[in-house]
Amino acid sequence: MKRKIVRYGMVGGSLNAFIGGVHRNAINFESCAVLSAGCFSTNPVLNKETGEAYRLDSDRVYSSYKEMAEKESQREDGIDFVSIVTPNNSHYEIAKEFILHGINIVCEKPLCFEVGQAEELKRLAEEKDVLFAVTYAYSGYPMVKFAKQLVDDGKIGEVINVSAEYPQEWLIDELSDVVSRTSKLSGWRTDPKVAGISNCVGDIGSHIENTVAYITGLKIKRVAARVDRFGHELDLNANMLVEYDNGSCGNYWCSQVAVGNMNGLRIRIYGTLGAIEWDQEKPEYLTFIPKGEAPQILARGNQYVYGRAAELKRIPCGHPEGYYEAFANLYKTYIGAVLKKINGEELTANDLDFPKALDGLNGVKFIHAVIKSGDNDAQWVNL
Amino acid sequence: MKRKIVRYGMVGGSLNAFIGGVHRNAINFESCAVLSAGCFSTNPVLNKETGEAYRLDSDRVYSSYKEMAEKESQREDGIDFVSIVTPNNSHYEIAKEFILHGINIVCEKPLCFEVGQAEELKRLAEEKDVLFAVTYAYSGYPMVKFAKQLVDDGKIGEVINVSAEYPQEWLIDELSDVVSRTSKLSGWRTDPKVAGISNCVGDIGSHIENTVAYITGLKIKRVAARVDRFGHELDLNANMLVEYDNGSCGNYWCSQVAVGNMNGLRIRIYGTLGAIEWDQEKPEYLTFIPKGEAPQILARGNQYVYGRAAELKRIPCGHPEGYYEAFANLYKTYIGAVLKKINGEELTANDLDFPKALDGLNGVKFIHAVIKSGDNDAQWVNL
Amino acid sequence: MKRKIVRYGMVGGSLNAFIGGVHRNAINFESCAVLSAGCFSTNPVLNKETGEAYRLDSDRVYSSYKEMAEKESQREDGIDFVSIVTPNNSHYEIAKEFILHGINIVCEKPLCFEVGQAEELKRLAEEKDVLFAVTYAYSGYPMVKFAKQLVDDGKIGEVINVSAEYPQEWLIDELSDVVSRTSKLSGWRTDPKVAGISNCVGDIGSHIENTVAYITGLKIKRVAARVDRFGHELDLNANMLVEYDNGSCGNYWCSQVAVGNMNGLRIRIYGTLGAIEWDQEKPEYLTFIPKGEAPQILARGNQYVYGRAAELKRIPCGHPEGYYEAFANLYKTYIGAVLKKINGEELTANDLDFPKALDGLNGVKFIHAVIKSGDNDAQWVNL
Amino acid sequence: MKRKIVRYGMVGGSLNAFIGGVHRNAINFESCAVLSAGCFSTNPVLNKETGEAYRLDSDRVYSSYKEMAEKESQREDGIDFVSIVTPNNSHYEIAKEFILHGINIVCEKPLCFEVGQAEELKRLAEEKDVLFAVTYAYSGYPMVKFAKQLVDDGKIGEVINVSAEYPQEWLIDELSDVVSRTSKLSGWRTDPKVAGISNCVGDIGSHIENTVAYITGLKIKRVAARVDRFGHELDLNANMLVEYDNGSCGNYWCSQVAVGNMNGLRIRIYGTLGAIEWDQEKPEYLTFIPKGEAPQILARGNQYVYGRAAELKRIPCGHPEGYYEAFANLYKTYIGAVLKKINGEELTANDLDFPKALDGLNGVKFIHAVIKSGDNDAQWVNL
Repeated sequence: MKRKIVRYGMVGGSLNAFIGGVHRNAINFESCAVLSAGCFSTNPVLNKETGEAYRLDSDRVYSSYKEMAEKESQREDGIDFVSIVTPNNSHYEIAKEFILHGINIVCEKPLCFEVGQAEELKRLAEEKDVLFAVTYAYSGYPMVKFAKQLVDDGKIGEVINVSAEYPQEWLIDELSDVVSRTSKLSGWRTDPKVAGISNCVGDIGSHIENTVAYITGLKIKRVAARVDRFGHELDLNANMLVEYDNGSCGNYWCSQVAVGNMNGLRIRIYGTLGAIEWDQEKPEYLTFIPKGEAPQILARGNQYVYGRAAELKRIPCGHPEGYYEAFANLYKTYIGAVLKKINGEELTANDLDFPKALDGLNGVKFIHAVIKSGDNDAQWVNL
Repeated sequence: MKRKIVRYGMVGGSLNAFIGGVHRNAINFESCAVLSAGCFSTNPVLNKETGEAYRLDSDRVYSSYKEMAEKESQREDGIDFVSIVTPNNSHYEIAKEFILHGINIVCEKPLCFEVGQAEELKRLAEEKDVLFAVTYAYSGYPMVKFAKQLVDDGKIGEVINVSAEYPQEWLIDELSDVVSRTSKLSGWRTDPKVAGISNCVGDIGSHIENTVAYITGLKIKRVAARVDRFGHELDLNANMLVEYDNGSCGNYWCSQVAVGNMNGLRIRIYGTLGAIEWDQEKPEYLTFIPKGEAPQILARGNQYVYGRAAELKRIPCGHPEGYYEAFANLYKTYIGAVLKKINGEELTANDLDFPKALDGLNGVKFIHAVIKSGDNDAQWVNL
Repeated sequence: MKRKIVRYGMVGGSLNAFIGGVHRNAINFESCAVLSAGCFSTNPVLNKETGEAYRLDSDRVYSSYKEMAEKESQREDGIDFVSIVTPNNSHYEIAKEFILHGINIVCEKPLCFEVGQAEELKRLAEEKDVLFAVTYAYSGYPMVKFAKQLVDDGKIGEVINVSAEYPQEWLIDELSDVVSRTSKLSGWRTDPKVAGISNCVGDIGSHIENTVAYITGLKIKRVAARVDRFGHELDLNANMLVEYDNGSCGNYWCSQVAVGNMNGLRIRIYGTLGAIEWDQEKPEYLTFIPKGEAPQILARGNQYVYGRAAELKRIPCGHPEGYYEAFANLYKTYIGAVLKKINGEELTANDLDFPKALDGLNGVKFIHAVIKSGDNDAQWVNL
Repeated sequence: MKRKIVRYGMVGGSLNAFIGGVHRNAINFESCAVLSAGCFSTNPVLNKETGEAYRLDSDRVYSSYKEMAEKESQREDGIDFVSIVTPNNSHYEIAKEFILHGINIVCEKPLCFEVGQAEELKRLAEEKDVLFAVTYAYSGYPMVKFAKQLVDDGKIGEVINVSAEYPQEWLIDELSDVVSRTSKLSGWRTDPKVAGISNCVGDIGSHIENTVAYITGLKIKRVAARVDRFGHELDLNANMLVEYDNGSCGNYWCSQVAVGNMNGLRIRIYGTLGAIEWDQEKPEYLTFIPKGEAPQILARGNQYVYGRAAELKRIPCGHPEGYYEAFANLYKTYIGAVLKKINGEELTANDLDFPKALDGLNGVKFIHAVIKSGDNDAQWVNL
């Protein structure tokens, strides 16, 4: 008999951990996934409390992810996938452990620190036939999917220039206020051991890279970047020139010190036949401009929206969907794929329309190239 | 010991019924409510399938709401509240039944057909000490709550004019296309027996009434309305003059045949000291204009947002929340109130910040007054 | 030989008088009109200074408009048209005087106070074959003309609802600040003898009436209005229901006490096949939404703009034209018509695409009907 | 006695020449400047016709600019300034000729081809005490002036990043349509002999440079640029990294092949205390965001606008001013300075608030640096 329900586990994501809650809420949109095991915190009390809050059996609340991977892989009713929502520095080892136990994986981004690690994870996932998703969640927005659709369908012709950015304001006080420096940039974000070689590029610049790549299908050949640290150990701002494999160019900018911006991921793709513009803060809309015509303000859920963007519609147009729903779309697709895999069904390209280990790898390469260029007076660095 | 989890039931809301799914997803945002009983459909097969899909015990999937009300009220682990998401014509009798069994209620809007029915439900709910919510969900948007906050705090002074509207496009073909008339206006929406005396005013005009009332605290004294039916039995468009109890006036417009509009609930409140503007299709923003100053584009989640709007923040600013989250906010508040009631705690005004039976009653009065004025060449009709 | 240059005179419009300067600048956009005579002020010194500033012959700077009409009509090189930019209460008698001397007229709006006066001016202008323009300047915006074009070409089908407004903030202090009442509402605007029966409806409500009429070609059958005076002698705010000759309805709102609005003339026309939206504060754009499709943001000067809107293009798209240029478009058309008339050429409908005495008459009728309805508890008043 | 009227001449700007007409209309906004001489075209017939159209004395319509410079400088009633609106390649020699005859100059941009020429003109103008303006007209917009004001007043703190662009669509067909290549890129724009070393950067990229410099007061230290020619002789697109003298960085982008853009000069300045954003296509507005607060949409003409932006107000807020008025503001200031100079009055900084020879020189330097960097694989080039 066909399985209709998947069981999942979580590493990280104790009560009140922000991103863990987002993952759980996103998964909850589907009625077919049940949280069944977890290793939520290295703090035993918090770990236990979180398990109780989500009504887990106490023997499936593990004190180490290694034990969890091992035991769950041995249970007949073991988890079908694990969501890894720990700080960046532990992604690699945790993901590797679960892959080696044959458990499907959803991992937060950035995937890991080193290009070699990312390549290894990608290779192992393929060898072990593990479904591996990296939560670049913005590609879950229906209108991002429709942007990709329009590009795929040739509606903007060949891409000739990209203008993309992701500015935020939230670390602006780091520029002026020595005393409060610990308040927001505390913990793992400023500690290279935990955050890796980059703060701003790693956290948000990588979303520019991934979202543009998703929409256009272009690969970055090289980058030239000016990276600003403003006296901190890690970067807070970066301006980039980007060259793609088709020879065209783009300008990227990411910042955590740009007053007036919240999560301003904005992407504009210019082609020989048209252009598209999308803004994460108004994700329900996509501006499409055919050459020589007036801009059209496309909105999610309307009858003229087709393909994946239409498949993922939850509520009628005009009742806004947001970030949770984008995240839920990633999970809906991923869980669907896991179910098909469990049931021995063929997976189509649409079934696999979620960010994968390759996307994680490309993100790590991008971060390294940008930081390296920044450290070399903006010389071009190949990816 | 304190209860931390509530059990709820549902009348209506079988698989694929749109609004039922919205309710369940909204409730799922909180980890503390468990679907425990249901009477999802008059179709026994569908009823059973829905119960299975949500993993209910089969003896708590009822074939009639009367049986459900009776049996659940007798169980020790019976439901703490019921969500009524059936067509409009059954709200009254179902709600009454559960009230009489002392079960708390969440009911879709419009509450019922007749003013007398609404008054009765309101009175009974008070007598039976039942927490009664009506799902005017737009007041769940944080920036609607912040609009109310600004008005309450005197930031716009005394209200002198209101301009509000709720246009949609979706029934435009009813104007021209005889053949397809059955496609969208089919079923209960055009049948006065099921929909009541109004289609457009009842469905969306009532949201204007409720949202303006929520934000301003003003009561409508009388309305003068021009109602358009375009050859149909029920209304598709209405222009209204509205007079409030403070002597000020407003213009309302609702339409299901206004090309280019999805769910265009837009509210502008003008006062002696300032003005506020809000648009449901961009619900994360609230424009606030202090007299003599530049318009400010306030956005949910920022540090300058305070009060209830801040309490209900789920994710940081700039990652959009939408319709589901607004709905979830209504339920979060309501479930919190139910838990406090169960645990014998005092309920504050903030605990009760959800639309109640009185709001349901005001909605029914508004619909009747508008339709009556429309039938009398736009003469004023008192509420 | 064909005349290529017209001579014009001005009544009112002394140095620093706001609207007189707008008229002169608007005329200056065309190189073919020369200011040749004037009666700029009843203040002899100011009158003389204005004449000198514009380098007029001193014998053509008149102390009375009657003398000016008489003498100019007798000169061989007399003015071809006169622009009347005096306060409202003198329009009628001045216009009448020039008509009777056979001089073409451009008159500020509102045309005059009484419906009978407007009818008389219209009749006399026809009898005397005088080209009579009333400066409802907003119809001079190219995108207003393109809105009319789209309606004329059937692009939105039959009009079924209109939503239009003209809010301003500038008199907000009249609501609260007794001391400063004289500052802005001084002079003719609050004195019924100078301003007529209406302040707000006359000054800006009439622009709603005219612009909607221009775009749609609809005639208003009757109005029902709530008019607010807030303790002043004349109106500051009005909400209106409007019924057109095709049976459709609209809601109008004008206000001088709506915080956050500058000159917010906004017009939305909904039809059976599409809709158009235009905002005077962003006059270069016109939103056009075909039924079932995405909104299109049309912009002046693009290749998809055709007809009158294209003819009147001055600078390429994207270099904004504004209020002066709209005014200049009115004059360009009017002066072109005067030249053709002088040269004995046939005048086409396009040549006469400026607001005429009939528009002035309709404006006066509208103002009277709204005020009368306001004084009768919003009962319908026929135009 | 004080002079109140200035006389001006024009080189270039025959009838129907676009930019010449803009200049004349801009000058016409002031009543104090009279076109008195011209050398409008090398085509004698067109030259004569233009002189007649503007009612010049025939002896002041010159067949060569040299003759004009000589004769006008000798007349007692000779021109007070000359506007040079010829193609780019002749600016240098014409400007030099008039400077040497001591005649004040307004010159179109780019000022000239070579950095050495620009330096020479700047030096000569100083030596000859000639008022020299270069028509970077965008700095004439009141809200650009207010942006500068806010920066000058410390409202955004120290600049830390600039994001600025000027995309257009109009040459998009050059990418695909070999046949029509001559249509738009014809004449001087593609011929390096006439256009200089750059098409896109010279024509519009230079406006980014100038407007950012005007607002921020920052000087560019070096640029790294990727320049795209798409098979043409001159550039059509360029992405740039820019480093300023205060150590901060910016990203610039200009394009003539970006679908959906008209004249999209958009400038965003981020500082330690706030940010400002301005868009040439909506020039009446300026977004100002103080750190930690909501964005404010400032609009021209309101009471909160002060300084130069307020001085240059022509019409009340909400009646849009546009490109002509920006140009007119430049001329208003320049003509005011010429009058003061003629009358022997002291010139203040405000009197000289127009783009000068130094701005022209900086523009030429910028163009050369960008093109050079583009030719060297985006290596940094110092200005």
